[in-house]
Amino acid sequence: MLTEEERGMRDAARAFCQDELADGIVMANRHEKFDRGIMKKFGSMGLLGPTLPAKYGCAETNYVTYGLIASEVERVDSAYRSAMSVQSSLVMYPIYAYGTEELRQRYLPSLATGEMIGCFGLTEPNHGSDPSSMETRVKYDKGTDEYVLNGSKNWITNSPIADVFVIWARDDSGRVQGFVVDKDTPGLTAPKISGKFSLRASDTGMIFLDDVRIPKSNHLPHVSGLGGPFGCLNNARYGIAWGALGAAEDCMEKAKEYVLERKQFGSPLAANQLIQKKLADMATEISIGKQACLQVGRLMDTGDASPEMISMIKRNSCGKSLHIARECRDMLGGNGISDEYHVIRHVMNLEAVNTYEGTHDVHALILGRALTDIPAFVPKKQE
Amino acid sequence: MLTEEERGMRDAARAFCQDELADGIVMANRHEKFDRGIMKKFGSMGLLGPTLPAKYGCAETNYVTYGLIASEVERVDSAYRSAMSVQSSLVMYPIYAYGTEELRQRYLPSLATGEMIGCFGLTEPNHGSDPSSMETRVKYDKGTDEYVLNGSKNWITNSPIADVFVIWARDDSGRVQGFVVDKDTPGLTAPKISGKFSLRASDTGMIFLDDVRIPKSNHLPHVSGLGGPFGCLNNARYGIAWGALGAAEDCMEKAKEYVLERKQFGSPLAANQLIQKKLADMATEISIGKQACLQVGRLMDTGDASPEMISMIKRNSCGKSLHIARECRDMLGGNGISDEYHVIRHVMNLEAVNTYEGTHDVHALILGRALTDIPAFVPKKQE
Amino acid sequence: MLTEEERGMRDAARAFCQDELADGIVMANRHEKFDRGIMKKFGSMGLLGPTLPAKYGCAETNYVTYGLIASEVERVDSAYRSAMSVQSSLVMYPIYAYGTEELRQRYLPSLATGEMIGCFGLTEPNHGSDPSSMETRVKYDKGTDEYVLNGSKNWITNSPIADVFVIWARDDSGRVQGFVVDKDTPGLTAPKISGKFSLRASDTGMIFLDDVRIPKSNHLPHVSGLGGPFGCLNNARYGIAWGALGAAEDCMEKAKEYVLERKQFGSPLAANQLIQKKLADMATEISIGKQACLQVGRLMDTGDASPEMISMIKRNSCGKSLHIARECRDMLGGNGISDEYHVIRHVMNLEAVNTYEGTHDVHALILGRALTDIPAFVPKKQE
Amino acid sequence: MLTEEERGMRDAARAFCQDELADGIVMANRHEKFDRGIMKKFGSMGLLGPTLPAKYGCAETNYVTYGLIASEVERVDSAYRSAMSVQSSLVMYPIYAYGTEELRQRYLPSLATGEMIGCFGLTEPNHGSDPSSMETRVKYDKGTDEYVLNGSKNWITNSPIADVFVIWARDDSGRVQGFVVDKDTPGLTAPKISGKFSLRASDTGMIFLDDVRIPKSNHLPHVSGLGGPFGCLNNARYGIAWGALGAAEDCMEKAKEYVLERKQFGSPLAANQLIQKKLADMATEISIGKQACLQVGRLMDTGDASPEMISMIKRNSCGKSLHIARECRDMLGGNGISDEYHVIRHVMNLEAVNTYEGTHDVHALILGRALTDIPAFVPKKQE
Repeated sequence: MLTEEERGMRDAARAFCQDELADGIVMANRHEKFDRGIMKKFGSMGLLGPTLPAKYGCAETNYVTYGLIASEVERVDSAYRSAMSVQSSLVMYPIYAYGTEELRQRYLPSLATGEMIGCFGLTEPNHGSDPSSMETRVKYDKGTDEYVLNGSKNWITNSPIADVFVIWARDDSGRVQGFVVDKDTPGLTAPKISGKFSLRASDTGMIFLDDVRIPKSNHLPHVSGLGGPFGCLNNARYGIAWGALGAAEDCMEKAKEYVLERKQFGSPLAANQLIQKKLADMATEISIGKQACLQVGRLMDTGDASPEMISMIKRNSCGKSLHIARECRDMLGGNGISDEYHVIRHVMNLEAVNTYEGTHDVHALILGRALTDIPAFVPKKQE
Repeated sequence: MLTEEERGMRDAARAFCQDELADGIVMANRHEKFDRGIMKKFGSMGLLGPTLPAKYGCAETNYVTYGLIASEVERVDSAYRSAMSVQSSLVMYPIYAYGTEELRQRYLPSLATGEMIGCFGLTEPNHGSDPSSMETRVKYDKGTDEYVLNGSKNWITNSPIADVFVIWARDDSGRVQGFVVDKDTPGLTAPKISGKFSLRASDTGMIFLDDVRIPKSNHLPHVSGLGGPFGCLNNARYGIAWGALGAAEDCMEKAKEYVLERKQFGSPLAANQLIQKKLADMATEISIGKQACLQVGRLMDTGDASPEMISMIKRNSCGKSLHIARECRDMLGGNGISDEYHVIRHVMNLEAVNTYEGTHDVHALILGRALTDIPAFVPKKQE
Repeated sequence: MLTEEERGMRDAARAFCQDELADGIVMANRHEKFDRGIMKKFGSMGLLGPTLPAKYGCAETNYVTYGLIASEVERVDSAYRSAMSVQSSLVMYPIYAYGTEELRQRYLPSLATGEMIGCFGLTEPNHGSDPSSMETRVKYDKGTDEYVLNGSKNWITNSPIADVFVIWARDDSGRVQGFVVDKDTPGLTAPKISGKFSLRASDTGMIFLDDVRIPKSNHLPHVSGLGGPFGCLNNARYGIAWGALGAAEDCMEKAKEYVLERKQFGSPLAANQLIQKKLADMATEISIGKQACLQVGRLMDTGDASPEMISMIKRNSCGKSLHIARECRDMLGGNGISDEYHVIRHVMNLEAVNTYEGTHDVHALILGRALTDIPAFVPKKQE
Repeated sequence: MLTEEERGMRDAARAFCQDELADGIVMANRHEKFDRGIMKKFGSMGLLGPTLPAKYGCAETNYVTYGLIASEVERVDSAYRSAMSVQSSLVMYPIYAYGTEELRQRYLPSLATGEMIGCFGLTEPNHGSDPSSMETRVKYDKGTDEYVLNGSKNWITNSPIADVFVIWARDDSGRVQGFVVDKDTPGLTAPKISGKFSLRASDTGMIFLDDVRIPKSNHLPHVSGLGGPFGCLNNARYGIAWGALGAAEDCMEKAKEYVLERKQFGSPLAANQLIQKKLADMATEISIGKQACLQVGRLMDTGDASPEMISMIKRNSCGKSLHIARECRDMLGGNGISDEYHVIRHVMNLEAVNTYEGTHDVHALILGRALTDIPAFVPKKQE
């Protein structure tokens, strides 16, 4: 099903992830630590913005390969895949797709090597699933030829360590616009959020924008309206769909090893019908889920994938992977609550993965609208 | 994803099924009637034994096309697809794969046109999921150069109307052997089973074999052991995997039409989030389930499909389709218990489809064995 | 948990149901036949309107006993319990609760013996879950001192065989009013619906009201508005909550016997973990579901039960029983599609039981409103 | 449903838990800290060993009250309820039920006040669900009149901080015996386990027994065999069944508040049908689950509760509560991964609660055996 090149890239990504990332993940997660060096490693492997052109220092792979990479990284941890996805789909992609050539040149090469880390400021404190209510505002100051940003963002992956911020804000005419903001711009702060019990191995924070002034050239001119961030999210969701199944595969593999080795009543746990049924169910969902991702990837590569297809695989992969991770944790019995057995980490991670970039229910309504032509996002107002 | 030829065959099959079969199905199901003429129609369309060589009068399609046909027929009714599957995968296939050239010549052309109807005698009254316990016996009578069959079979699709019976029996050395038995052979009876509330539009019966003598030439010589019937079942399960999703698609289509048209509290039912979520779930499962079938079909065509893959798609398609049909019935409210709304017919049918040729749980254990190398079919003996 | 009297009544009901009803049910269901004699048997056992006063010929039991009776009858078939519920909760109850003493005297004794059969005309062809959209109209003709009814009703249990019809209609001021209509009143017709694949052992029909004139005395004067039919439905739902679990218990008992007796691979099916888990799940749901019914019954008897409690047990019992019946059918394998094994009959019946008098989803929204104070029945209008 | 006294005790426990425990739980959980002072607070409130006689300093409540207390404590955190359950059901109960009067006098009063903390050493590293494979050994040394214990135990709540250890070990004749071991006995060590992502607010550890010598008088003489620990577990499981639902209630309450307050698309999240259905489902399961606990509690108080009933409610409460907690976390969206919203803490805790003292699947097989008389715990040996 894969070309030789795709297989090669996948195998290289797997070897890298297992050799370079897997060892440290338990402690990174236990102590909520993200090491910037990981981004440089991603960069050196060509895993950042991999679908973008080589002239910006990117690997210029197809989308199927991008998916395979996401899967291998998330096999280690969703936090690492999130950090990589944000950089690739939510920072490099919009700079490439919506930015000027000057912006591309300025940012993409350093983002591609991982020397620079980016984040994506869309979600706001009170509008998780509803970007149309965005409160962050941008004003154009004719006097200085600058844009002035005010507002706040929440649950932003990488924000505490980011060098570059892609920020979405509403202009005076009500249209959403995108901007690239450097870390040291006065008025910008990005405090870390503590007490996360999901994606602990990546940094998440808020973003506060208090009269942040940026030069006109940092505007993303080639898009306006919600189509801008939605295009990025679409790109990211595609990677998440692949990634989540990577986490599920790791859970299944770890649980399978455990039930094969561990004996109860004199037989391996794996000899129990109740265990075998769980394995059969998850093997099925992983297999058919991956087929669906692959097929959408092929359509991404020909430009024929619709947002609804991506909604479908994002929702399916995340919901199923979360369920699989939970079943695997259960298969590990008492030991399964220890982080040394890995699975509970995936369980916690996949809670966020199933929620961000469109919750399971929001994607149900996106698909429902596609099927019925009736939007049902907004419940009837109370009288 | 499909070639032009595959699409053409699918569209022809769909047109035929909707034009020739759909109108009569409600009454056929209500009154438990199967019309032999339907088999002749199948034959004239080239839907019987479609993957077999043209020289026997067959369409010589690939396996993907066979799957597409199964899906179109089951969109009308699982009973019709069952009748077609039995003829194609369980009668024509073993005669072709395990029979002598003489047997092929004698039977395949009439089976291909539907003038002759066949059935497959494997399952026995007390051994639904365990053909290894087969009690039907065959003895070779040297004096007459005949085989003598004794035993009984149960839940045999088409048996009451069959002209030719593929019968599996255990020989004196304990090996399972296959035979082709003509309807009018003395000692053979095949009474119809009444009171079925599933697959009512096809005939199901028992088979009694009381000293049934058949010439040596009616033995299927090119296979012995359970591999014979299992090869047939594999072939049939592949078609079922496609077929069940055809039934699910019909349910979804009918339910979708219903909720779009029917108003409650002044809005179409389809405007309800609870309805949209059901539609999103089923659209997802149908889409990804079909991708999986297609992929296995491509591997069937290159000879690379394993029995476990077929177990997986048979189990997945049937279990999911049954669930989808039930949800659709629910979406139809009170009207949904009437056969005129079609869905409850599919609900009843899919109970059998999910059960026959390996129940959902038996396939879980087949997959479980493949994953763990530990067979768990046989529970521990009670002490 | 039960008083001696309650246990006695339950045991008598069980003996009666098993001795008098169980034998004929397979054929009654297979051929869609309801025998009026069954209502007389119910009457002779005191099972009709059992909670009403003795002076009208009723058994004057408490509500717990009513529930126990419903459970025993539905253990045989939901159609019989439906016929009994309609008579008791939807015909006798409103005549008693909302009618004049004259109406009580005129109808209750014959309804209590089962000589007279009643039906309840609320649901209309296009408004299954939304009685507030009722289109049936009543006008008062001052000249003749009569009420004149026009409209139609659908999915009315017992209507084709009913002698007395409780009909709900909207008056000129828009308020819903209740009336008692005799069968032979000109303009009233009640054709039977065929092709039901649920509750086949009871008669269901439409009701057409074409200038049906009834004397003023046949008005139910002590209620107006939807509170009238809702009070009846509440009463009926309480019985359904008990009844559905009776069907589930019969399924479980039949499936348990089957898996204990039937051997596969040399062991009883019951030795399989996958089977034992299904049994454990259903035993749990039946046990705790019955506790909940009992508790609500005790509160009915003290007048402390709220409609939401009844919604909760109706929804829980029906949804869980339907699920249990489906699992049991699966446990019966291929045999499970035959009506002689009973379970598939319950599966089909419980589809209607889970739907009528408030679908599973409608009761979810009733409970949701109780929990949040926000009604969510009406989706937002499409723009 | 409750007596005035029961209600009073429940209300006092709730006030205490909310006032004294709720504030610190987020940080205790975040940093994996258990404060011994909490046990003294439990003691001062009479929550330790509450069903035991007053003459040992206990509250001498009935079992219904014990359940209500467990529910209130677990509403704050399962870790606190676990610490309390271990002390009450697994330390004080066996000392009372199986110990000499001297042992009772020596230990119970200090355990009742919480000055002394106990733990229960049954589970071993390789035999989570199978205490019959216990490897810990006890030998009687006639010379010194001492018992000598050797072995190890794992996943022992409270062990790192315990003053007194109830240890189960197998004697030379193969029978399991119980012993009370003081903390400072040479050869006994109890290191803490780190990296738990469940019950982080209680201490869990191993126990190593290396030639631990204890006086004869520390033997629990009134029981031998697995009935000893099983009696304790039964007692504890009863409390868990109540407790888990307390955690579920807290989740539901927190999620309900959240969806009522938080607006999306201009309406409270609670106005969405998809949200209301989740609330309706969980309110139902909590209500009927509590009814079942209450009923078993009443039977405990009359001595009529069977172990199977307790299995049933332990399994039902834990499985359902875990599911409810997960749904609630989902309702909290992105915020739901933060410990400040509490629910994810319950999600993690309930993983352990659903697993310990009999996993969901093990209890399924316990119930399955009760229903079928066929034990299915031990899968067939591989050949």
